[in-house]
Amino acid sequence: MDTHITLDHGSGGSKTSELIGSILLPAFKNPALDQLGDGAVLEGASRLVFSTDSFVVSPWRFPGGDIGKLSVCGTVNDLCMAGGIPKYLSLSLILEEGFPMADLKTITGSIEAQAREAGVTIVTGDTKVVEAGKGDGIYINTAGIGFLKSDLPGRSAIRPGDAILLSGSAGCHGAAVMMARSGLITNESPLVSDCRPLHQLSAAVLDAAPDAIRILRDPTRGGVATTLNEFTEGMSFSIELDSPSIPVAPAVETACDMLGLDPLYCACEGRMLVVCSPESAEKLLTVMRNTPGGEEAACIGHVTQEMPGKVLLRTAIGGRRILSKLSGAQLPRIC
Amino acid sequence: MDTHITLDHGSGGSKTSELIGSILLPAFKNPALDQLGDGAVLEGASRLVFSTDSFVVSPWRFPGGDIGKLSVCGTVNDLCMAGGIPKYLSLSLILEEGFPMADLKTITGSIEAQAREAGVTIVTGDTKVVEAGKGDGIYINTAGIGFLKSDLPGRSAIRPGDAILLSGSAGCHGAAVMMARSGLITNESPLVSDCRPLHQLSAAVLDAAPDAIRILRDPTRGGVATTLNEFTEGMSFSIELDSPSIPVAPAVETACDMLGLDPLYCACEGRMLVVCSPESAEKLLTVMRNTPGGEEAACIGHVTQEMPGKVLLRTAIGGRRILSKLSGAQLPRIC
Repeated sequence: MDTHITLDHGSGGSKTSELIGSILLPAFKNPALDQLGDGAVLEGASRLVFSTDSFVVSPWRFPGGDIGKLSVCGTVNDLCMAGGIPKYLSLSLILEEGFPMADLKTITGSIEAQAREAGVTIVTGDTKVVEAGKGDGIYINTAGIGFLKSDLPGRSAIRPGDAILLSGSAGCHGAAVMMARSGLITNESPLVSDCRPLHQLSAAVLDAAPDAIRILRDPTRGGVATTLNEFTEGMSFSIELDSPSIPVAPAVETACDMLGLDPLYCACEGRMLVVCSPESAEKLLTVMRNTPGGEEAACIGHVTQEMPGKVLLRTAIGGRRILSKLSGAQLPRIC
Repeated sequence: MDTHITLDHGSGGSKTSELIGSILLPAFKNPALDQLGDGAVLEGASRLVFSTDSFVVSPWRFPGGDIGKLSVCGTVNDLCMAGGIPKYLSLSLILEEGFPMADLKTITGSIEAQAREAGVTIVTGDTKVVEAGKGDGIYINTAGIGFLKSDLPGRSAIRPGDAILLSGSAGCHGAAVMMARSGLITNESPLVSDCRPLHQLSAAVLDAAPDAIRILRDPTRGGVATTLNEFTEGMSFSIELDSPSIPVAPAVETACDMLGLDPLYCACEGRMLVVCSPESAEKLLTVMRNTPGGEEAACIGHVTQEMPGKVLLRTAIGGRRILSKLSGAQLPRIC
């Protein structure tokens, strides 16, 4: 068994088989994958949800997770936010020559554990190897299939008065990765990524008030502020956030102060934004707080008509400012 | 409009929106994609085929295609080989900072044209950007969903006497990419990749003799020899190929001589291997020859019992040698 990835592991020959047989298949064993066909044949249903994400996070290991965990949560959460129940994942690796086998095993272990927790099965995959210097250790793509649970109407159904709910502290993932990248984090640091699957939270709110929910979204790249701007952009409504109501963990606050970042623009990888009718907000908050991962859910603002297309932040002392969409990267390679 | 990719194009902010709005959405416009959700909601059917592939081919442009065309054909063909009718694709880009916008437009143009030809719709996607030096221009992942047309029994159904059919010249893609990489190819060279979608060919044989087909496979990485070894490995049968019957284009022959390669180990990206009952071989050959992309289909060998687990090649002068599975990379980064 080799200790590091070589170009031969991407050849399609016996070294590729060895890699698949020794690390990948044992990690994800299931009847569909064991066929080793180029594609998996799956039992289906009438309406599907389909999503994909590539993961290039740097460093690949960070407090609270690694690229493996992230690559499952990212796609699972996209399926959940589209109203789906996640079911199947594909897994495609782009490995750099020289990447340590031991690290690959760590990562496949994370993937397996996370897939099990989220109730998804990895049914098909692919592995490519590029020369040293042509990648950055490991990039992962996952694509996912889910079955539609609720056909959510989307942002066009958002109305003035609607409530904006957030399932937990903003910006943990982005802040944790940036601190890890800066070498500023220790094992004892309370700052950890919020990376987690949202399948229980999304199913809980969809069960509780299926007709009251306009849209679900996980605020990943660009954070809460960017995601809310995607809701308002070009629409006839605005969103006003109430700063003191937005949960931000003290460790995130401290990290953002050190790094000069705004938690509202830092990525979450295990938080859910819900836009819902005003009447259902309290009920949904209770449901979220009683579901794993939603203990700190809060109503962080409302839909208004004051400045159509904009997202506003009302500060603790009553001032207001516009949270605009950033042009560029506050945080590159966060997921 | 920027002329080159910057890290900001991967930020999730307005530069990302600009990239999506100016290049990606116009190329692939369709109602599912236009929702711009994290996942696409799709009409489904009872049984699905699901596949994924990442593409890291170098150079990204080669005679007969580019990484865009390849990224559609590769996944479409995997779905076809699993007995599916390809329907939906996801598209995920990992771009290196500094990649020219003009090249990205060329590639998305290829993707669009090829998807249209293959009858698939790109319904969801993702874009990441990595720093200069951490990638190699562009890597693409596609995942695909198809609806099951025929549930093929697979290699366990292969029986002595079965025929091995190949839809056209072996090794064109691998030879063309290697010649392009070596700078040895000119615009007038007759050597072009066989890169093409196999949806018509696979549907044609499945319609013609659904019960006679054991397995379909496109011989990509490792070529015809490696794919046939995957059929025989650990089984009680062997495969004997008849060298003079194997179609190999003269330009491939010449290129392989120059580069010291064996066409039987060179990747195809638009050929189909069919293992079928002896009685149906002639009928299927006729069907293939009458279908676009199968004009040069040939019966290249048969299943035997002589050396279980092995693939043998009978040469023009009657000698025989074993075509073993290569350990490593004859051709790295061919797809």
